Amino acid sequence: MTYCLAMKLDEGLVFCSDSRTNAGADRVSAFSKMHRFSLPDDRQIALLSSGNLGTTQAVIEALERDMREAADINLASAPYVSDLADYVGRLSRDMQNKYAPEGEEAGFNAEASFILGGQIKGAPQELYLIYPEGNHIHPSERFPFFQIGETKYGRPILDRIVAHDTPREIAMRCALVSMDSTMRSNATVGPPIELLFLRADNFSEPNPYHSFEATDPTLLKMRAAWNEEIVAAFNNLPSIAEVFSED
Amino acid sequence: MTYCLAMKLDEGLVFCSDSRTNAGADRVSAFSKMHRFSLPDDRQIALLSSGNLGTTQAVIEALERDMREAADINLASAPYVSDLADYVGRLSRDMQNKYAPEGEEAGFNAEASFILGGQIKGAPQELYLIYPEGNHIHPSERFPFFQIGETKYGRPILDRIVAHDTPREIAMRCALVSMDSTMRSNATVGPPIELLFLRADNFSEPNPYHSFEATDPTLLKMRAAWNEEIVAAFNNLPSIAEVFSED
Repeated sequence: MTYCLAMKLDEGLVFCSDSRTNAGADRVSAFSKMHRFSLPDDRQIALLSSGNLGTTQAVIEALERDMREAADINLASAPYVSDLADYVGRLSRDMQNKYAPEGEEAGFNAEASFILGGQIKGAPQELYLIYPEGNHIHPSERFPFFQIGETKYGRPILDRIVAHDTPREIAMRCALVSMDSTMRSNATVGPPIELLFLRADNFSEPNPYHSFEATDPTLLKMRAAWNEEIVAAFNNLPSIAEVFSED
Repeated sequence: MTYCLAMKLDEGLVFCSDSRTNAGADRVSAFSKMHRFSLPDDRQIALLSSGNLGTTQAVIEALERDMREAADINLASAPYVSDLADYVGRLSRDMQNKYAPEGEEAGFNAEASFILGGQIKGAPQELYLIYPEGNHIHPSERFPFFQIGETKYGRPILDRIVAHDTPREIAMRCALVSMDSTMRSNATVGPPIELLFLRADNFSEPNPYHSFEATDPTLLKMRAAWNEEIVAAFNNLPSIAEVFSED
């Protein structure tokens, strides 16, 4: 399984992904699900992937080959981020059809989902969720985030915290907490955890990025602090004893 | 959809359930999914249900009929709570087979799950999760709770808070927060929310119970307080800025 999420904030785009892959409990491995591409002074792009590892790796390889061979459309040439979303969606569908031409067989599912975000100079930052069918959507103003993979465990905290004007620092903590909650509840989501921020209108300076191993002291400190804060928060809640009619 | 949960604490058993049922977006209704049975000075039983409404209603009707007709095994006669779990599992499987004898047809799923808990005098309190196949399990010492229905959204908070020695008041708040998070993230889970506590070794005094309507002032107050506490908790977390090598 996989858990990836991305947020579209006024300050920029947050991307967070786990690295665990599994095909049965005895074939667990780690692959990065975060791919980045930048052209100095022109574009900053990040891509998160979820689903069949054969499909997602084939899509990444095709993106790289198209760029090397300067194909008509490629990561470096597309004029809009939405064109890139179309392009990734088309590649994804092609790769899925290649291996499952007659629809799904029992136990085989070639589907893959992607989150693509970034900025091309002259236009604002964009964020897209690309469905297995190849079409894509952008997030709403009210819920400016996307998740793919094992999305439910980490969702409530996003619903409560993330808005377009959430400060970067809070949003990135929230991404880590959402990821940590998911790892805790589902053993098929695991470290390293990658966390990236793409600042709006930044085409030349480096962007904050970190890969958290399972023993990363900052991750462990944050996890312990969050546990303490949650327990304290429960203790601070108003009593509900008043409602109980002893029936 | 449905969300029900129950906890087995040293002090007693907590039960919490939503009341929304839906068969498509235009057939939304409200039914209680919490059923209680008590014999003064002998037993206190609660049953939560999830899944096909035809199946769960048929099981409840059979339980009532068996009791009225003093069947060999019924809610009032079984000597152990585990016998009741067996009995409910058998009824559930029978009702499922009645309507889906040849296995699932497209779009039809007769499956149902139950959580059964309570106490019969002379033995400790017990809690069981009853699978659609009719078999049942009891919770672990480390994670002394069960969920049925739409379980994932509300799970992380249970993982973080609930242990066997969690005080009743904290555990019941946690059940409400878990339910509230689920309602917020999934429109097919909804009020009234029923919340019940069965005190250990109590066979005669009334037990705390309340049904929260959507506009219940205690529920609204708790929801607002929890939102405030969560935001404050995030603001209190240590900064993660230290990890970012500006790559």
